[in-house]
Amino acid sequence: MLFPDTYAVNRAGHMEIGGRDLLELAAEFGTPLYVYDEATLRGRIREFRDGLRAAYPGESLVLYAGKAFLSIRIARLVAEEGAGLDVVSGGELHLAERAGFPMERVSFPGNNKSAEEVGLAARLGIGALVVDSELEIDLLARLAVDHPVRATLRVSPGIKPDTHSYISTGQLDSKFGFPVETGQALATLERLLGVANADVQGVHAHIGSQIFDLSSYPAAIERILDFLVQARHRLGFTARELSVGGGVGIAYTRADDPPRPADFVRIVAAAVAEGCAARGLPLPRLLVEPGRAIAGPAGVALYTVGAIKEIPGVRTYVAVDGGMGDNIRPKLYGAVYEAFKAAAPDAEPDTTVTIAGRYCESTDILIRDARLPRVETGDVLAIPASGAYCLAMASNYNYNVRPAVVMVGGGEARLIRRRETYDDLLLTEV
Amino acid sequence: MLFPDTYAVNRAGHMEIGGRDLLELAAEFGTPLYVYDEATLRGRIREFRDGLRAAYPGESLVLYAGKAFLSIRIARLVAEEGAGLDVVSGGELHLAERAGFPMERVSFPGNNKSAEEVGLAARLGIGALVVDSELEIDLLARLAVDHPVRATLRVSPGIKPDTHSYISTGQLDSKFGFPVETGQALATLERLLGVANADVQGVHAHIGSQIFDLSSYPAAIERILDFLVQARHRLGFTARELSVGGGVGIAYTRADDPPRPADFVRIVAAAVAEGCAARGLPLPRLLVEPGRAIAGPAGVALYTVGAIKEIPGVRTYVAVDGGMGDNIRPKLYGAVYEAFKAAAPDAEPDTTVTIAGRYCESTDILIRDARLPRVETGDVLAIPASGAYCLAMASNYNYNVRPAVVMVGGGEARLIRRRETYDDLLLTEV
Repeated sequence: MLFPDTYAVNRAGHMEIGGRDLLELAAEFGTPLYVYDEATLRGRIREFRDGLRAAYPGESLVLYAGKAFLSIRIARLVAEEGAGLDVVSGGELHLAERAGFPMERVSFPGNNKSAEEVGLAARLGIGALVVDSELEIDLLARLAVDHPVRATLRVSPGIKPDTHSYISTGQLDSKFGFPVETGQALATLERLLGVANADVQGVHAHIGSQIFDLSSYPAAIERILDFLVQARHRLGFTARELSVGGGVGIAYTRADDPPRPADFVRIVAAAVAEGCAARGLPLPRLLVEPGRAIAGPAGVALYTVGAIKEIPGVRTYVAVDGGMGDNIRPKLYGAVYEAFKAAAPDAEPDTTVTIAGRYCESTDILIRDARLPRVETGDVLAIPASGAYCLAMASNYNYNVRPAVVMVGGGEARLIRRRETYDDLLLTEV
Repeated sequence: MLFPDTYAVNRAGHMEIGGRDLLELAAEFGTPLYVYDEATLRGRIREFRDGLRAAYPGESLVLYAGKAFLSIRIARLVAEEGAGLDVVSGGELHLAERAGFPMERVSFPGNNKSAEEVGLAARLGIGALVVDSELEIDLLARLAVDHPVRATLRVSPGIKPDTHSYISTGQLDSKFGFPVETGQALATLERLLGVANADVQGVHAHIGSQIFDLSSYPAAIERILDFLVQARHRLGFTARELSVGGGVGIAYTRADDPPRPADFVRIVAAAVAEGCAARGLPLPRLLVEPGRAIAGPAGVALYTVGAIKEIPGVRTYVAVDGGMGDNIRPKLYGAVYEAFKAAAPDAEPDTTVTIAGRYCESTDILIRDARLPRVETGDVLAIPASGAYCLAMASNYNYNVRPAVVMVGGGEARLIRRRETYDDLLLTEV
C-alpha cells in the first residue's frame, strides 16, 4: 500500500514506477522531482467508483478533491475516468475550465468564497456550489443569473474522527459547515431554499482527513440522515444528493495499515442505503470526495543527497536538495515518511540518519532517524506517499524553485509541470 | 514596538502607515495586501548600523537576512542604506544580481549548496561563501576560478537559546555549522585553509531566531573566540571577520517586550571587543545578520472580513480572504498575532472571535480568541508584525494567488509586487 501500483525493482536492482527506472528519471529531469504513477491514479479512482457502483443501489459519483494535488493533466485524467472534481477556489475552478473539465461534475466547497468566485461558479454552471456561510446565500441571492445555481448545503454532523486535530473538520467547533445539533443547519437550509437563484440539491459533509478508523462515517451519516428527515418534515425538502466527503487515510510508512478505498465506499454506501431505508427516505445520489487516497499513493518524491554531516554521538545529517519548501508536512503535521535508496531499495538498512532539507531552518527535516543502507553524496532517495499535500502546499521559501512533476506509465515519462526558474520567481516583481 | 514607526491614527480614526490610510490602500490594491513601511525598514537597519558603529571599536557591517522577506525593491533599499545582504540560495543570489546589489556585501550561508550555486557565488564574487559542509569544500576545490572565493566557516558554538525549537540553530544537534566542541570546526577550518580556491575570512555563527533573552549571545561569542584562539595557535589562522548572525526577537502582540536592535548590537559588540582584548586577538570585522528584526515590524497584513459564523456557546468564526497560504506561522510555529480594525483601531474590544482563513483546512486559523470591537463582513483587519516569514513562506495552496505588496512612505504607496493571477498559477504547466 506504500508504493504506487506499478512499483517494481528492475533487473538493475533499481526502483521502477510505470516501467521507468527512478534513477533514469532523476538524471533526465533533475531533482527534486515528483513522479506520479498514472496507473495508481486511475486505479484508485476506479476502486472508489466501481466499489460505489457495486455497493450502492442508487446513483453515485466520485469527485477527486483537487486540493490534494492538481494540474491540468491530472484534471483531464480525472475527467477521462468519469469522475468529478472538487475545487475550493476560483484558481482551481479556472484550472478546471482551462483543462476542459465537464462543469456539471464540479463541486465547490469552501468556508469563505468571494463574490467573484460565486459569480464564476454560476457562470460556468458547476454541479454544486457547496454553500458554507450566510454570506454566500446573500451573494447567491444578489447574482444576476439566467438559471438557478445548483447548490448543496454543508452541514457539520458533530463527529470528531480519530485523526490529527489540524485536519479534523466534523466536530462542532469548526469553521466548516452548519451544525446539525444547534439547529443552524435547518435554519440555513430553510433560508437557502428561499433563494430563487439556488437550485438546492442536497447536503454535503466532510468529517476530516487521513482517517483509518472508518466507524466515524456511519456515525456521521446517521446524524445527517436524521437531519434530512427533519428537513423533509419541517421544510418539505427532499435531498436528491448527499456527499459524505472524503478523508480515507493512506500509508506513509510500511508500518501503516490504512483501509482500502473499497472498504470506505462499502461502509458509506451501506450506511446511506440502510439508513435511508430505515427512515423511509428516497435514495439520494451518493457522492464521495477523496483527494489524498487518490493522489497520495500515486506520487513519489525523488531527491539527491548532497552534504552529509556526522556529529559523533549525536546524529548524522544527510542533506537533500529539497525539504520544507516542497514538503512541509513533517514540520506542519509531524508527518512521518520513509525513504528508500532508488539504486538499492531492498538493501538491508544498516545506518540511522536524519534526512535534512536544504532550507535555512534548523528543523527543515524530512525524516528523523531514517533507517537506510549506507548513503553517499549523489545517491537518489525516493520518498513514497508524496503525492498529496506536498506540492499542493509548496512554497518558494528561501527563493528555492518548486520541483518538476512527471507522470509515468507504460514505460513513458511525460513532464506535466516543469521546474520553476529563478526568473519565474521574479514574475510579479514591479 | 508592535506597529511600524510611522503608524498613526488619522483624523478619520483609521489606521495609517507612511502617511497612507490603510482602508484606502485596501480599496486601491485589494486584499489580502501586505504593506511595508519604508521608514521602519530604513530605521531598523540604521539602528543596527549606527549602534554597531558606536559600540564596536573595529569595522562592522549589518547584513539583512533576505530569507525573512526579499524583493528587488527591498534589496535596493538595503543597498542604499549601506548594508549587506544575506542570501541562502541561488534564487536569492539571482534576485540580488537583478537588483544590482553590490556583491562584495553579499554573504551566502546554507547547509546544502549545490555545485551550481557555489559556482554562481564564485562567478559573482560575493563577499563570503559561508562554508557549511565538507561537500562544499570539495566543490570549492574543484572550481575553475581566476581569483580565490572569499569564504567563512560556519561553526556551531553549542549554545541553545531560549526560543522555539523549530528555529533554534546554535545547539550541538543541528544541521548547521561545524561543532566547536567536537573538534570538527577546527579540523574543517584546517581543510578549508588548504583549498587554494578559498580566501578564508573568518567564521560565522547563528544561534537561532526570535530571541528575547540576549544573554545567549555573549555565551556563544565566548566559545567562538576560544575557538579563534585555538585556530590561531594550532593553525596560525587569524580571523579578519566574525559574524554573530541575527536572531533578535520582535513583538507579535502588545504584550511582547522584545529587546531593541540597539540592545543587541551593544551586547554583541561588547562581548566581541572585550573577549578579543582578553584573549589578545585582533579585532575582526564584526557582522550581524538580522532579518526578522528589520522586516517583521515594518510589515502589516490587511485582510477583508468575509463570512462570519457563530456557533452558539462555542465560538464565532470570522473568515478573512487570506490565511495559511500567506501566513503559515500560526499553524507552523503556534505564532500568536493580534488583529485590529483598520477603521477603528482604538475602539474598545467587546467581542472575542476566531479569525479563520479561507483555506480548506479546519485549523487554517490566523488568530484564536482575538479581542476586537464588533466586526462585520467587509471590515478591513490589520495584523501588524507580518513583515517577516509570512510572504517568504507563502504557498499557492488551494490554488489561491499570493498577495500584492506595497511599500509606503511620505504619503505615497508603491506597488512592489503585484498580486498573482489565476493564469500565473498555470505558468509551469506543460
